[in-house]
Amino acid sequence: MRLRHKPWADDYMDDNNHIVIRSPFEWKGTWNEVFDKKQPLHLEIGSGKGQFIAGMGKQHPEVNFIGVERVKSVIVGALKKALDAETENVRLINEDAQDLRDLFAPNEIDHIYLNFSDPWPKSRHEKRRLTFHTFLEQYEDVLKPGGELTLKTDNRGLFEYSLASFSQFGMVLEEVSLDLHGLEDSLNVPTEYEEKFSAKGQPIYRCKARFKG
Amino acid sequence: MRLRHKPWADDYMDDNNHIVIRSPFEWKGTWNEVFDKKQPLHLEIGSGKGQFIAGMGKQHPEVNFIGVERVKSVIVGALKKALDAETENVRLINEDAQDLRDLFAPNEIDHIYLNFSDPWPKSRHEKRRLTFHTFLEQYEDVLKPGGELTLKTDNRGLFEYSLASFSQFGMVLEEVSLDLHGLEDSLNVPTEYEEKFSAKGQPIYRCKARFKG
Repeated sequence: MRLRHKPWADDYMDDNNHIVIRSPFEWKGTWNEVFDKKQPLHLEIGSGKGQFIAGMGKQHPEVNFIGVERVKSVIVGALKKALDAETENVRLINEDAQDLRDLFAPNEIDHIYLNFSDPWPKSRHEKRRLTFHTFLEQYEDVLKPGGELTLKTDNRGLFEYSLASFSQFGMVLEEVSLDLHGLEDSLNVPTEYEEKFSAKGQPIYRCKARFKG
Repeated sequence: MRLRHKPWADDYMDDNNHIVIRSPFEWKGTWNEVFDKKQPLHLEIGSGKGQFIAGMGKQHPEVNFIGVERVKSVIVGALKKALDAETENVRLINEDAQDLRDLFAPNEIDHIYLNFSDPWPKSRHEKRRLTFHTFLEQYEDVLKPGGELTLKTDNRGLFEYSLASFSQFGMVLEEVSLDLHGLEDSLNVPTEYEEKFSAKGQPIYRCKARFKG
């Protein structure tokens, strides 16, 4: 359930502006300076309530994580999780990042995560899917050469589409799983949504793909 | 059930050597001469009892089809289906084609089908999977530049492996379906095995991939 009215959300984010980076466009090209350590930078697009990014931050102290989430009433949940997890390597951005190149300089990112993105199933909405080629162009620009993207979804149509889209863009599929939870990958950090749908027996699909170096 | 003892199989093939091509290695580079019409040549590797190739022959009179099947007691079923279907564009080869380059000249084939190939699930048997890179090299050699391969399987592990293998070989995924029968693709010609497993609710996976032109 999404809590829509959180008038305290702005105050909460301002009070924790060491985690939710305000005026994020000003940090383009210098994101590593908002972290304690200079280390690889991983970006999650659409962080929702933050279980994934907080969990990944905890599991991978050797990586800096940035989560972008446009919905204010949702990102405060991610903020709370990041605070509770006491991670020092997670930062959040509350923006509708239509073009990631406004937020990040070329080659600034090492890895991008797309978790349970909106599938936009209608053909006429193809352009809105976060794996449409115009988005892949953005990712390629902000990623280092040979940078990677990991997609997780329970939506069959989006997964089928994305595999073909990645391939046709010239990306190489490094790993494909059609039943992530059947794998029992102990390192997988599930999102809130993923836990809920996997518990219903819905297979979770995952693909790791690499841009040309 | 595979009928193992068919002492009449050789006679049956000899009597129908306009369909089961004897001494097939002698036709390397000249396969179109065994057909009535010179038209695109599609190859199925592992034709089994022939429902796919006979059905495709019927559905696509504008294409010549060759099916390779090493098991004698199985290929006679394919021969019977080809005869019953009264197709003029289906030929069969009873050989264990370890290297397709012994049977076909470079650029001789337009399309290759792999239907429900042995998944060889153990890692140490990876080399035997028909989508291992050494096989892809063979396919690329006998296919025309930009030639296509269509894979169908109900085996999740083989499908995951094959998508990554195709991509890493430099092939482009043109289409991926994780539930072919959910699509209701009216042009799909099911194999015997496919009908049986799909009826049990098992999803059928299909991928069409293209070699670099």
